[in-house]
This record gives sequence, structure tokens and C-alpha cells, in this order.
Amino acid sequence: MTNKIVEPVGNNSSSAVREVQVFAPATVANLVCGFDVLGMALQQPQDVMTVRLQEQPGIVIQHADGYDLPVEPEKNVAGASLLALMEEWKEKVGFEVIIDKRIKPGSGLGSSAASSAGAVVAANHLLGNPFSREDLVRFAMNGEKVASGVKHADNIAPCIYGGITLIRSIFPLDIVQLTAPPMYVTVVHPQIEVRTSDARQILRKEVQLKAAIKQWGNIAGLVAGFMKNDYALIGRSLEDVIIEPVRSILIPGFDDVKKRSKEAGALGGGISGSGPSVFMLSKEEAVAKGVENIMIDVYTRLGIEFKTYVTNINYNGAKVIS
Amino acid sequence: MTNKIVEPVGNNSSSAVREVQVFAPATVANLVCGFDVLGMALQQPQDVMTVRLQEQPGIVIQHADGYDLPVEPEKNVAGASLLALMEEWKEKVGFEVIIDKRIKPGSGLGSSAASSAGAVVAANHLLGNPFSREDLVRFAMNGEKVASGVKHADNIAPCIYGGITLIRSIFPLDIVQLTAPPMYVTVVHPQIEVRTSDARQILRKEVQLKAAIKQWGNIAGLVAGFMKNDYALIGRSLEDVIIEPVRSILIPGFDDVKKRSKEAGALGGGISGSGPSVFMLSKEEAVAKGVENIMIDVYTRLGIEFKTYVTNINYNGAKVIS
Repeated sequence: MTNKIVEPVGNNSSSAVREVQVFAPATVANLVCGFDVLGMALQQPQDVMTVRLQEQPGIVIQHADGYDLPVEPEKNVAGASLLALMEEWKEKVGFEVIIDKRIKPGSGLGSSAASSAGAVVAANHLLGNPFSREDLVRFAMNGEKVASGVKHADNIAPCIYGGITLIRSIFPLDIVQLTAPPMYVTVVHPQIEVRTSDARQILRKEVQLKAAIKQWGNIAGLVAGFMKNDYALIGRSLEDVIIEPVRSILIPGFDDVKKRSKEAGALGGGISGSGPSVFMLSKEEAVAKGVENIMIDVYTRLGIEFKTYVTNINYNGAKVIS
Repeated sequence: MTNKIVEPVGNNSSSAVREVQVFAPATVANLVCGFDVLGMALQQPQDVMTVRLQEQPGIVIQHADGYDLPVEPEKNVAGASLLALMEEWKEKVGFEVIIDKRIKPGSGLGSSAASSAGAVVAANHLLGNPFSREDLVRFAMNGEKVASGVKHADNIAPCIYGGITLIRSIFPLDIVQLTAPPMYVTVVHPQIEVRTSDARQILRKEVQLKAAIKQWGNIAGLVAGFMKNDYALIGRSLEDVIIEPVRSILIPGFDDVKKRSKEAGALGGGISGSGPSVFMLSKEEAVAKGVENIMIDVYTRLGIEFKTYVTNINYNGAKVIS
């Protein structure tokens, strides 16, 4: 980063922006065979955040969404991310953040990552973009630490970079952007609670070498499929022999949704992050909508409240819109 | 495959070929972080095989190289591969195979794969190419079974397809060709014995999930690096946290070669297959030659006989040359 002096800003200053709105997209972490390393940004849903630059140091968080989330900066994911940014910025500066959360917390769709990423993308814009996207990922990882106790970037990176990202390494941070052919993403969020920490705890700490080989064959196939625009290869590679068999037990209807979606022509899919949301990729919109109908059918029969989305990959990432 | 009638061939027949020569390249399996799934074909060394179509059914194997390898078709890797091909061809046909092996058996450079692949590529040509390359891989895997007791394809696939291949799955067989930027490959074959079965036995059957995640982050990075022509990413991804720490103990000089090669500018590298050969990838020829000098220095000091190659990726695979 380059440290810049913050110009005193006034209402009639045309060169300095005092307030911005940012859209921060939902993200699907893991992408089936890429546990802890792959992630993808979605067009829908997106959080809307308003961030104001304040001359007075400090962070003020407000919620415009009715969710009962903490507003103390150190306990709030956006706040913790901004604190990390302000520590490197060094100049005295303050932010007021109004969060209109449209990605439900606990959905497995990167709700905390959206708040963290949105806040630092907005702040960076307000300061004249002194920080790189990689810097912003580093800052926003502090929000993930607040949310789940672990600094991870598999939601943060796609939320900031857009598209599909690979976190090859977290220490040191190594983010790789992957190209992919156009795809539709159908998502269902069954309104049940699966806590990230629980979803992590049920995983075994050791895995069979045989299974690991299968998994790294699949992630290699998935990356190659994305970059070669090879839909069939993407579909064949969307297989998780390690995490899904354990975690899917926590999600009623999972096997049914997956089996019927693939029969209906979906390329494949699985658990979004640690769940409970489930996503399916399709080449054609009609298939993606057929998958949505299957999801509606499964969760209606189960009597579980749910929300569905038929959307696309988001290539912008968190974006300042005004 | 399409079954075709074998035309009776004679010396003066111009439409039918009675004898071909085939060059079958050495291959590097695993490519550091792609244990059991990645492989790469080399320009040097290559076996030379002469295969003759015989009207009389059966297989005759001859060695023109002085290696004491079995000549009974069922026990010979080329013979076992041809037997698998002949079983699917169904018409009565015979082959005479003369093997001039230039890839030393037990080098870890896919010597058995070259014989297996070369034999079926030649036979397919002599029969008018009724079989696909995938068919040929299936046949040649029978040679690997003879050599190591396991039907694997991480040497066979690059030997037949050329370039860099991913075996996403072995049952069913799913071979993915990967593009890559031009690279130099420096190889040293220290003349010590590491048996594939021993190299496999010392591996633990279970691995830490944490290590597996690191490994699939690296293979995803390596595939992305190859396909994006991103040398730096290739270099960063050439890291094996599971197999190499165990197997490299069997190869004297390994750590020294690797450390000094990377200091000299090599992108990275590791054990070729199950060893004892060690390979290093470089962007520039001068670096690749510098790496060769390092290898020469290390094994001269150790008093271990060795052979080195400075070569490139082979994009043809096993090739009929006359």
C-alpha cells in the first residue's frame, strides 16, 4: 500500500467522496471438491452497505436490516475488518457503516464475508484506493475470525475479486483467479441452523490417502474444466468423497435434491460452505429453473421453510455503486 | 473401437504396413503435488521399438538392449499390453516386438509405461488405427499391472497423449489433457534401486486433513498455473507435503539437489514417479543447464553413479516414425 494524506472533505468538495454505497455478493465456498480453497461469487443475493467517511476517529455500526448482530466494532465482522484496515492506514479516520443485510446470517452463503468485504472495499474507495485487493482480503479475514474463530478466505476472496477464486495458500496468502464458462447457479437455503463450528467439528482430522487422491484428482479436473470451458468435465469433477458424506447428514433433503437435480440435467453441486444452503450448477437457464422446482418440491414436502435463488456467477465482486 | 478385417499383407503391398518403428518417451509421474494423477512426457530419453505384424497368431518379444527382461508375453509389459489389445481386436493376428530400451528400468521415468504404450501404439498403427487413445491407455495399463501389480495410468497417459495429463479417475478412466507454457526439464537418475512397491509401502494409509487441503490447494494451483502460463504460480504450487517428505528419504542427495536448484532459479521439482530420478522444471535453458551442473556436483560428491538429461516436454507422445 501507499500511505496517502486524507484531505479534509466537505459537502461541497467534488474531488473527495464522503459516502458510498457498496453491493457485496453472496459466495459459495468449497465448490464441492475444493474444501477450504475454492469459492465463487453470486449475482444474488447481495448485501447493501452504506459507508461514510468521518473526520472523527472511530467506527459506528448501524443495522438497517433487523438482524440482531453486534454493533461493537471489535465484535462486528465489518468493524473488525475496518479496524485492521485503519491499523495499516495509520492516518486518523473514522467510518460510519449502515448494513442492510440481504444474505441471511448462518445460510452458508458467506453472509459474514459480505459484510467484511463490503466494508473494506467501501473504505478503500473513500480513502482513494490506497490498498490492493489482496490487502483488502487480509483485512476482511479479521471479520471471518470474529464470525467463526478462524481466519479463512474462501468466501472473502471471491467476494472481493468476483468470479471463482482459489486460495492456494493462506499463510502466505496466495489468491488465484480462475476463468470459467457461463453457468447458472441454483441455490436453496433451507431455514435450519448448521453452525460453522459444528460443521467443522464433525470432520475427521485424518482422511484415507486413497480418498485424498480422489479428491485432488477431482479438484484438478474441476480447475481444468473451468479453464477449458468443458462443462462435462466440470460435472464429472463435482464430487466430494471426504467432506460431503459427513456434512450432508446435517442437511435434510440433501441427497434428494442432489440426485434429482443431476437427473434433471444439472452439472452437479453440493453444500454451499458449511451449509445448510445447497447449490447446483447448470449450463442452461431452463435446467437451473427446473432444479429450483425440485428444491421447492423437496423442502415443501419436508415442511422446512426455505428460500431459493436462480442466479449467475458474479464477476465484479463487492462493488461501489454510488 | 471399430473392428476391421485385417487385409493379408505382403512385401509388395503398398496399402498395408508390415513393420513400424515407434519412439516411446520417458514420463514423469506425480509432478510433485499430483500423486497418482498427474504425469508429463519428456523429449528425452525415449525407447525405440520395432513392431511387425505377423499373419501367424501370437506374440514374440525380443530385446535389443541387453536388459534382462522377461520375453514371455504374459510376463512382459509390452506383451501383456498387446494381449489386451488382441482380446478386443478379435481377429487373429500376431506381433513381433523388438525392444531397444533407452529408459533404464527402475529409473522412475516410466520405463515400463514406455514399452507398454509403445507396443500398443505401434500395433494400432499396423492394424489401421481402429482404437482410440483412451483404448490404448486401457490396454497399456495391463503392462503396468505386470510391472508393479497395480493398473495405473499416470505414466501411460502422458506417454500416449504427450504433454501433461491428469488422470481424474481411473475407474472409469477419465484422462484430461492440460496445456502448459514451454519449460525445460532437468532430470538426474542416480543409479540406486528404489522399488515402486517399496516406495508405495512406506506411505501412510491415512493423512492429516490439513495436509490434504494443502495438497489439493497446490494441485489446483499447479493446474491453473499450467493453463494460465503463469510460471511463478507453477513454482509456488510445486510443493508436496504428503509423499515427498517420506519418499525423499530413500534418495540420497535429494534435499541438496532441490534446495540448490531452486536457489539457481528452477521453478521447482521433486521425485519423478516413485524415484530414484529427480526432476526440476525451469523457464530458461541456462537455468536448466545450471541445475544439471548442480545435480552432477551433488552425485559426484556422493560417489553415486548417475545420468542426467536436459530436455523439454514432449507433446507427441509415443510416435510411429517409419
